[in-house]
Amino acid sequence: MDAILARRSIRKYTGQAVPDDVIKKLLKAAMSAPSAYNEQPWHFIVIKNRQILDEIPRFHPYSQMLKEAPLAILVCGDKNLEKSEGFWVQDCAAATENILIAAQAQGLGAVWLGVYPREALVAGMRKLCGIPEHVTPFSLVSVGYPAEHKPPSNRYDEARVHHDRW
Amino acid sequence: MDAILARRSIRKYTGQAVPDDVIKKLLKAAMSAPSAYNEQPWHFIVIKNRQILDEIPRFHPYSQMLKEAPLAILVCGDKNLEKSEGFWVQDCAAATENILIAAQAQGLGAVWLGVYPREALVAGMRKLCGIPEHVTPFSLVSVGYPAEHKPPSNRYDEARVHHDRW
Repeated sequence: MDAILARRSIRKYTGQAVPDDVIKKLLKAAMSAPSAYNEQPWHFIVIKNRQILDEIPRFHPYSQMLKEAPLAILVCGDKNLEKSEGFWVQDCAAATENILIAAQAQGLGAVWLGVYPREALVAGMRKLCGIPEHVTPFSLVSVGYPAEHKPPSNRYDEARVHHDRW
Repeated sequence: MDAILARRSIRKYTGQAVPDDVIKKLLKAAMSAPSAYNEQPWHFIVIKNRQILDEIPRFHPYSQMLKEAPLAILVCGDKNLEKSEGFWVQDCAAATENILIAAQAQGLGAVWLGVYPREALVAGMRKLCGIPEHVTPFSLVSVGYPAEHKPPSNRYDEARVHHDRW
């Protein structure tokens, strides 16, 4: 609960690497997400390679923090695994959100970078990571140990809550 | 972390009502989700009215559990609040996932029912709850105190993990 409420987008990181067992926890959290018909239409590319991380900001305008990040996880959706057409985006978003919350719970900082449905970003990630046509790069999560600290942001807005009907 | 890993879809509930302060925690969790450009394009309809809950299974084939559920939260996306076109679905999915994890953390059971992009389900919810045209019913979360208990399901699959490239 605390991890959900305290989570903020963290874009500055210490140089410390994220250990493999911690990365596995993030991936376990991701794959624990619900999906339509339990289709689990996801793949994850764990990017630690400095050259690849540095390449991303050349085509993705909001990803400058990757130059300092020790890790990014690219969440992808696989059309061949989809059982209920049109739900893979929601499934991959739930998996991405789980990564963010798990990162917060592990003392990491992370930020969700949108990829899909921006065609140039999808194409850029596809080319960079050699992703086949039936798989769509969906989101990129930049991860590291936080070098900035933000207070929880209370976004609760009573005006967005309706009772029984609009 | 435990709430993420232990969460399962719960479709059987005791008759106990969910207190308003607990519902508010679920909504706070939902609104703590990240969104593209922090656009927060969401609205939430808290449905406790028995007649409305009973009406939903008449057009939504996977919602029979609502006949026993004390509560459902309808997550909606508002086109007028969208700052980055095409991202509202991901934002609303992240908010929905936060409700599910928060429910688990609060000792509740919940299940995510897909609405968007199924036109018949969107139209059914729109009519039932009087939702205006610029707002799209996105997902429905059925919530209650659990009357079934499922062990955590380990969905981690090493085959879905790639390193640096596909």
